[in-house]
Amino acid sequence: MTAQVWCNARVATMLPGAPAPYGLIDQACIAVEGGTIAWVGPHAELPEAWRRGAIEHDVGGALITPGLIDCHTHLVWGGDRAREFELRLQGASYEDIARAGGGIVSTVKATREASEDELLAQARRRLRALMQDGVTTVEIKSGYGLSEEAEAKCLRVARRLGQAEGVSVRTTFLGAHALPPEYAGHSDAYIDEVVRMLPALHGAGLVDAVDAFCERIGFSVEQTRRVFDAAKALGLPVKLHAEQLSDSAGTQLAASYRALSCDHLEWLSEDGARAMARSGTVAVLLPGAFYFLRDTRVPPIELLRRHGVPMAVSTDCNPGTSPCTSLLLMLNMACTLFRLTPEEALAGATRHAAQALGLDDRGVLSTGRCADFVVWDVKHPAELSYAFGASPRLATVVEGQVR
Amino acid sequence: MTAQVWCNARVATMLPGAPAPYGLIDQACIAVEGGTIAWVGPHAELPEAWRRGAIEHDVGGALITPGLIDCHTHLVWGGDRAREFELRLQGASYEDIARAGGGIVSTVKATREASEDELLAQARRRLRALMQDGVTTVEIKSGYGLSEEAEAKCLRVARRLGQAEGVSVRTTFLGAHALPPEYAGHSDAYIDEVVRMLPALHGAGLVDAVDAFCERIGFSVEQTRRVFDAAKALGLPVKLHAEQLSDSAGTQLAASYRALSCDHLEWLSEDGARAMARSGTVAVLLPGAFYFLRDTRVPPIELLRRHGVPMAVSTDCNPGTSPCTSLLLMLNMACTLFRLTPEEALAGATRHAAQALGLDDRGVLSTGRCADFVVWDVKHPAELSYAFGASPRLATVVEGQVR
Ligand SMILES: [Zn+2]
Ligand SMILES: [Zn+2]
Repeated sequence: MTAQVWCNARVATMLPGAPAPYGLIDQACIAVEGGTIAWVGPHAELPEAWRRGAIEHDVGGALITPGLIDCHTHLVWGGDRAREFELRLQGASYEDIARAGGGIVSTVKATREASEDELLAQARRRLRALMQDGVTTVEIKSGYGLSEEAEAKCLRVARRLGQAEGVSVRTTFLGAHALPPEYAGHSDAYIDEVVRMLPALHGAGLVDAVDAFCERIGFSVEQTRRVFDAAKALGLPVKLHAEQLSDSAGTQLAASYRALSCDHLEWLSEDGARAMARSGTVAVLLPGAFYFLRDTRVPPIELLRRHGVPMAVSTDCNPGTSPCTSLLLMLNMACTLFRLTPEEALAGATRHAAQALGLDDRGVLSTGRCADFVVWDVKHPAELSYAFGASPRLATVVEGQVR
Repeated sequence: MTAQVWCNARVATMLPGAPAPYGLIDQACIAVEGGTIAWVGPHAELPEAWRRGAIEHDVGGALITPGLIDCHTHLVWGGDRAREFELRLQGASYEDIARAGGGIVSTVKATREASEDELLAQARRRLRALMQDGVTTVEIKSGYGLSEEAEAKCLRVARRLGQAEGVSVRTTFLGAHALPPEYAGHSDAYIDEVVRMLPALHGAGLVDAVDAFCERIGFSVEQTRRVFDAAKALGLPVKLHAEQLSDSAGTQLAASYRALSCDHLEWLSEDGARAMARSGTVAVLLPGAFYFLRDTRVPPIELLRRHGVPMAVSTDCNPGTSPCTSLLLMLNMACTLFRLTPEEALAGATRHAAQALGLDDRGVLSTGRCADFVVWDVKHPAELSYAFGASPRLATVVEGQVR
């Protein structure tokens, strides 16, 4: 296969410990062989091998960053919650909305009723919106099916989405997302069912990781432990929706399983942060949900920094608390609302997002990594976090192929 | 010219007092002759004249709304403030940033130094981002030139943008935006200069309206009055940046000139709201600036409702306080942050935005109005406010032409 060279670029490698912020290299080239980066560096140092014969892409001084990674989404769901949003703004109470069939139960019902193709068509629009912002890898959780059949359907849709759109999809089984109506009052029995369905779903090749919603209104630490044990038995990594509404100490449990990530974390304690640092667990920040819920408790960024916990930033795309399909907007919200620096925000959608998915082959631009990157019509990477409401993407390259 | 009919649509006419919310008509048609709407109504009632011979556009059940109107932008500027954003998040103080050449002064300097073509190229990207969201009419203010020559340059760029991109541009002269450095300590003398340059700019066909920044850190009520008198002498309508940071009672002054709009209004008093209601002045809400500045004082929406003041919603696109180019995101922020209903938000970017620009030929879909409308891939108009970070636009029609 012919080598390719992207040149005349400003490359933000996002390599940690690089001398320049963002790992910036001016007048840089990226040499690609097959789907892999063969070399990155200043044009003046480009090895002879790629100076002749390689297909050359001159990007005219544009910025290149790693492909963006959205490491926490609930992208596959049926139905529509816009009406519920409207009712609430018209003054309806939560009971009114429940009576009108709203809330997560309505999404579960619609997801169960939808065909696989209908779910695919709906989710594909959302994925394409994410791709407008240069997303090349996306995590997709189940959790609106809540039965083996419906969870399998959603995870199959997630897999098909990746194939159809040419992006990497990582699936996460989130059976322990909410209690399905038929298990009302029997949450332990539902956890039995979650633990039972996991091996079957995994056997069908549908599960890359396992997640749970550990919260007063979700599942207990003890129930979460049972889900994690089931994952561990299959060798699957775990993640956790933790400390969003209260400090349940789910983080410490997750860390004891060497969780890839704990996500939300508005109520994270210092103990929790310490545990995450020790276990190498990523803190996934979800400013879209914070914004949409008009939350006022910001995750403890300073604490995470002090303990050296890597921070990722993601859309949390879901119909109830973050109907958001722009990862660039999340960079802006991470800076504006959580006071991350633009460099931290971009690391959160590249290097640290990869880590939150257990992927060490992407998220930075260096020899041997996936040739997933984005060419941007901006001069400086800070612009990606600063402006909001538009995507300055010029081109996306996935495994060495221009999209 | 052959008539055209858009059919198989769900049309949100946005006509006030219509029986259905949003003026919704199902199974509707819009007949267009030239650039004007000839008829709107249910397909079953489509007059014979447009049943044969007209070019038919079947939109497959999609939603059609009026073209969106962004009635408050500062779209034309030079330079870049991303670095300043980054410095601030890295902990730099306002003095640090001023020393590093940041703030509005840096934008004025860069705007003065930029050529007309450079400004056009920069602003065109922003306008195209707005157009992705279905914007067909946009107001563009001057105010970063602050000299006759530089203000004229920016207003010419605004006019050229409209021609180049095929959208309606309304220009507003905002000479009284900030004190240029050469007038430091001499704000009255600068107002003399603003009053002097206005007739020349107007004579060159560059001014549709006149605005001022009335605020402790801007210009006084007395100075604003002088600017408004100069506008009145030329028969130009006025607008005002008012009560953003404090209650200066600028609103009452503006109302006494029958201002088209007062904009921002976080500190609006009941007296101010009453005055606006009496003068038919529109309240332009700018949630992007509220968000970006992490403001906590929400404009008094209930007060505006009680006094029947029409509310518009706009991006305020500008480099310092709202580097935002998505009007749909502003609909979501108007609902999420200011608690507008989705119907109020959409009226704020259509009917009331038109009123804020003094345009009665657009903003609603009815016979005789401009054939400016947007076809959306959504079932219900509430979805336009609910989801954020993507544009479900399928097509835009401007004066009867599909874009
Ligand atoms: Zn989530
Ligand atoms: Zn403004």
